[in-house]
Amino acid sequence: MKFLRFKKKINELGKDNSIKIGFYDGEKIIELKGDILDYFNSNLDEIKENMIESYSLEDIEIEAPVNPSKIICIGLNYKDHAKELNLELPKKPVIFIKPNSALNSTEKNIIFPNISKQVDYEGELAVVIGKATKKVSKEEADDYIFGYTIINDVTARDFTLGDGQWTRGKSCDGFAPIGPFIETDLDPLNQRIVTKVNGEIKQNSNTSMMIFSPQEIIEFISQTTTLNPGDIIATGTPPGVGPMDAGSTVEVSIEEIGILKNYLIKEE
Amino acid sequence: MKFLRFKKKINELGKDNSIKIGFYDGEKIIELKGDILDYFNSNLDEIKENMIESYSLEDIEIEAPVNPSKIICIGLNYKDHAKELNLELPKKPVIFIKPNSALNSTEKNIIFPNISKQVDYEGELAVVIGKATKKVSKEEADDYIFGYTIINDVTARDFTLGDGQWTRGKSCDGFAPIGPFIETDLDPLNQRIVTKVNGEIKQNSNTSMMIFSPQEIIEFISQTTTLNPGDIIATGTPPGVGPMDAGSTVEVSIEEIGILKNYLIKEE
Repeated sequence: MKFLRFKKKINELGKDNSIKIGFYDGEKIIELKGDILDYFNSNLDEIKENMIESYSLEDIEIEAPVNPSKIICIGLNYKDHAKELNLELPKKPVIFIKPNSALNSTEKNIIFPNISKQVDYEGELAVVIGKATKKVSKEEADDYIFGYTIINDVTARDFTLGDGQWTRGKSCDGFAPIGPFIETDLDPLNQRIVTKVNGEIKQNSNTSMMIFSPQEIIEFISQTTTLNPGDIIATGTPPGVGPMDAGSTVEVSIEEIGILKNYLIKEE
Repeated sequence: MKFLRFKKKINELGKDNSIKIGFYDGEKIIELKGDILDYFNSNLDEIKENMIESYSLEDIEIEAPVNPSKIICIGLNYKDHAKELNLELPKKPVIFIKPNSALNSTEKNIIFPNISKQVDYEGELAVVIGKATKKVSKEEADDYIFGYTIINDVTARDFTLGDGQWTRGKSCDGFAPIGPFIETDLDPLNQRIVTKVNGEIKQNSNTSMMIFSPQEIIEFISQTTTLNPGDIIATGTPPGVGPMDAGSTVEVSIEEIGILKNYLIKEE
């Protein structure tokens, strides 16, 4: 099931700007009552009981599928990326946090900050937490996962390199586009992930190349930090990371989830 | 004015566990209607109109004074700390983030994670943002500050040193005690700040030793990252940082704000 949050496109009257939730059945968007996280582990009957109305994709604007209290990201986590960088495989994940204020969604602009010299794309598979968890084992981690989505871990590379700590370069407004959908039925370790800039393939790998699986990452983080419903874990980026110029269109795609598409624009 | 959030102490009936807000007049807690952030720039008349009832300090439990969407912390920011570490003064602030899930309050326990070997105190002055801001100058920054409080930037030192990135060691549950009060009328650059462990003075400096003022830090961060109402900025720690054993009591005090007191206990 592909869950999403959306708004009706503003009509001439400009009304109904509220955020709605629902799912995409491959043709239409079906609006549901309540909050996406209410549908954690729900069955088809429960979903059918809560259907409101349907929209065509053209009539809606997709929002980020959750409003996370934290976005935890993993550093180097692809074997082929480690090889590209000539680095040894890490023995444990390294984490950093993007704040909620960086949240962005598909088809929206990303602002190239005028005090940065280099903004990079980093396409990644992201986990959406469905249920609060502390100290869970990797074997039990699936019981706490709502589903999977896509994140572009946009990075001001000159900030991360200059600061040493990565936080500032990862935390600029709009640097966390997430979406378009949360897919609840997906094998996280067998997904082709592709990033294109202006239509040209820049990253092309498979999540099977991950060093730490989503379940191992959840075990690791939750040893000391509670993961809450709606929290996002970005699972690291494959090889081919690089800069984008202002004016670029960037697309990160995982076939079973969708395409996360954004436009990098100059700051005014 | 000293604002706070609190609960009535649970009586035998166990009822009324809701979070209330109010202020401390030096003797009693006066409950107010609404949310603390509603009182940004309010005058005494507005406050008097919204008073509900008063409590003695003994009848309440103090909660963290805000529920921040992000806690942004600054690395090295005291001249005397830089001198102690034999480091050059940094040319710009280095930031990291503690997640909301690390939030804690005065008189509560901090859990010493059983997978960490060293947990350190770091007493700090913290800024509370009152109004959303992006790209503000240091000259205008005061217009966006609600007030000042205290934070203990508790740190699993073996995590920060081992990981390189500081996030995991700063993000353990309960590692962000904040409070007890938000003081709205305070000169942030002339406050003695003292940290005691089991009654022994460990840190004893003055915020006049800061390298970057709170206003300069807000200018710096807000160039690329929106600060939202209730967000916390921890302004860095003075010299004397060090480890605590499980069983320790740690107190960070700034006379015009109060004492932030916590108990470090072994994880079960």
